[in-house]
Amino acid sequence: MPVDRVHAARAVADEVGVDVLVVTPGSDLRYLTGYHAHAMERLTALAVPRRGEPLLVVPRLEAPMVDASPAGALGLEVLAWDETDDPFARLAEAVTARLGAAPTRVAVGNRTWAEHALGIQRALPGATLELGSPVVDRLRMVKTPAEVTELALAGAAIDRVHARMGEWLRVGRTEAEVGADIAAAILAEGHVAVDFTIVGSGPNGASPHHELSDRVVQAGDVVVVDIGGETATGYRSDCTRTYLVGGVAARSLREWYTVLQRAQAAAVAAVRPGVTCAQVDAVARQVITDAGWGEYFIHRTGHGIGLDSHEAPYIVEGNDLPLEPGMAFSVEPGIYLPGRYGARIEDIVVCTDDGVRNLNEGTRELVELPG
Amino acid sequence: MPVDRVHAARAVADEVGVDVLVVTPGSDLRYLTGYHAHAMERLTALAVPRRGEPLLVVPRLEAPMVDASPAGALGLEVLAWDETDDPFARLAEAVTARLGAAPTRVAVGNRTWAEHALGIQRALPGATLELGSPVVDRLRMVKTPAEVTELALAGAAIDRVHARMGEWLRVGRTEAEVGADIAAAILAEGHVAVDFTIVGSGPNGASPHHELSDRVVQAGDVVVVDIGGETATGYRSDCTRTYLVGGVAARSLREWYTVLQRAQAAAVAAVRPGVTCAQVDAVARQVITDAGWGEYFIHRTGHGIGLDSHEAPYIVEGNDLPLEPGMAFSVEPGIYLPGRYGARIEDIVVCTDDGVRNLNEGTRELVELPG
Repeated sequence: MPVDRVHAARAVADEVGVDVLVVTPGSDLRYLTGYHAHAMERLTALAVPRRGEPLLVVPRLEAPMVDASPAGALGLEVLAWDETDDPFARLAEAVTARLGAAPTRVAVGNRTWAEHALGIQRALPGATLELGSPVVDRLRMVKTPAEVTELALAGAAIDRVHARMGEWLRVGRTEAEVGADIAAAILAEGHVAVDFTIVGSGPNGASPHHELSDRVVQAGDVVVVDIGGETATGYRSDCTRTYLVGGVAARSLREWYTVLQRAQAAAVAAVRPGVTCAQVDAVARQVITDAGWGEYFIHRTGHGIGLDSHEAPYIVEGNDLPLEPGMAFSVEPGIYLPGRYGARIEDIVVCTDDGVRNLNEGTRELVELPG
Repeated sequence: MPVDRVHAARAVADEVGVDVLVVTPGSDLRYLTGYHAHAMERLTALAVPRRGEPLLVVPRLEAPMVDASPAGALGLEVLAWDETDDPFARLAEAVTARLGAAPTRVAVGNRTWAEHALGIQRALPGATLELGSPVVDRLRMVKTPAEVTELALAGAAIDRVHARMGEWLRVGRTEAEVGADIAAAILAEGHVAVDFTIVGSGPNGASPHHELSDRVVQAGDVVVVDIGGETATGYRSDCTRTYLVGGVAARSLREWYTVLQRAQAAAVAAVRPGVTCAQVDAVARQVITDAGWGEYFIHRTGHGIGLDSHEAPYIVEGNDLPLEPGMAFSVEPGIYLPGRYGARIEDIVVCTDDGVRNLNEGTRELVELPG
């Protein structure tokens, strides 16, 4: 399949008028070729001219690694460069030869480092750089059934971690201690790497991207736990649940939390082909705004997920992209009360032919832990 | 100290004629401000105009994290942007106001993502992008005594891992099994993250950047072990030793390895202020070439190290940068015999006022393990 992806990228590049797409190590390269390399200062790049055969530019000392990777089976031409070569010049020369003229529109991977993007620019002074996302995202955004299976496995793995939260999240422990246990469990439960462990206890929960601190969990704390990792195939998990530790929720807290639950459920229920990303965001926002908490929902509703934790499509105001079957993303509204606490509920969902599939199970209630 | 670094960067920018330096999450931002953030799609950036005060552009939902980080104490102006703002336009506007005119030379961090670099370009259509390294590396390349101490602690930590290699590197185990044990030991011995674990056994040792495979270590294998990690302060370790497992080195192997040892020692001994990076490379290369193995030493002699595993200065042919006291880098020649085996010896060294300080101890001999 991966070589089909390279050819599919070539077809999209040709369709949108990009002369050559250049992607460097990271999820774009892994998606297109199966080659999972570290981003480093030495240039490794897949160049996909709109005409002619694609090629992989690699430092000579890493050429054996390409052969040993899934990319080795694709039959891509490998251009191995030596330590004192100018790899950008060699790439430019090879691409120009394939196109019959120097490219004028060069798309680079969105996460390609500036030193590589500007190196390509220097070697192709007549070209204008643009982002590769319009080419690559067209492919990456729509997951195949096999990719959905990978995301579902990742979702089940992170659900198992949440299900064990009572083992670690207890009164008297610091967020950092809890986070270390969660990180170990993420690895134990079907991931090869931890992407993030957010344990936002009490007022820290009002900072959506707070990670870990030395704050000690107090009885009665509301705690936001947002965790995710990378599986062996590169697909990611990302799931948020909110806990109440060592206390019973007062009625006012419960009513407040119920607003968030309704918002999250309504946004998930709104997912189907043809609905836009902005509309899904608006559904969640409307429920929270109607209840009077709109100003405390300070972020977009979600982000796509796949080989990156955050990728297209983004579920945000202004994004009029219509959903298509196979698009996978988070639905994660939150309400944040500065100085007090916050709450967020996050599931990964996939747009199906006629609606939505949820890849996270487990209660979305405010989970009361004994403390 | 960090605010001094921001002001020092401003002085260098002004000196080289850069109107504004923009760095995004990663080691440049951590070095300059102490803010250690994940690189994400939402723009976080330190903008340092050559005149006026620097500013930190952050997503509003992450503004509390800046306050909670060392950057919070710097008194930098924080420009918090909302989910539906254009952060590039806001950055451009703020920088233009400080300079009194739109900048024409904009330097971006070398590892800034293309989507951020081109976003800045779009918001400043009259500007030409260039790399930030001429500004930032001037500062980062020369380590302070406190930074050298951090690198020395990292070096001692990785030396302890190598000293325990006989516990894990044994006949009958796969490289992957050995690597997993090494990774755990890297964490146990004073690191917060594993950067890489290369276990190149037998023929795999002839692929310099080979990582791990399911190859089972055989009696008599020569094994290249190149490992490194990140310490709590962000400074890195990186050390290579070569082992002989379950065998005694034949005289021919020992003589061959001795060439490499001599080359590595000679290159380390050549380090002193005023000697160029290229000269250090040439010293190692000459010894190996004179012995007839030059064509099998297929990479540069070394790379700088600090908050990144690989950073300036690069010890490579053509780099005529003279060494200065405080520059820290690897000296790591290798000889690779395709299909047979390889060997590499790597130490991190620091240029001192009158010579060199080695930050790795431990034997550089071919280490015979019982197997």
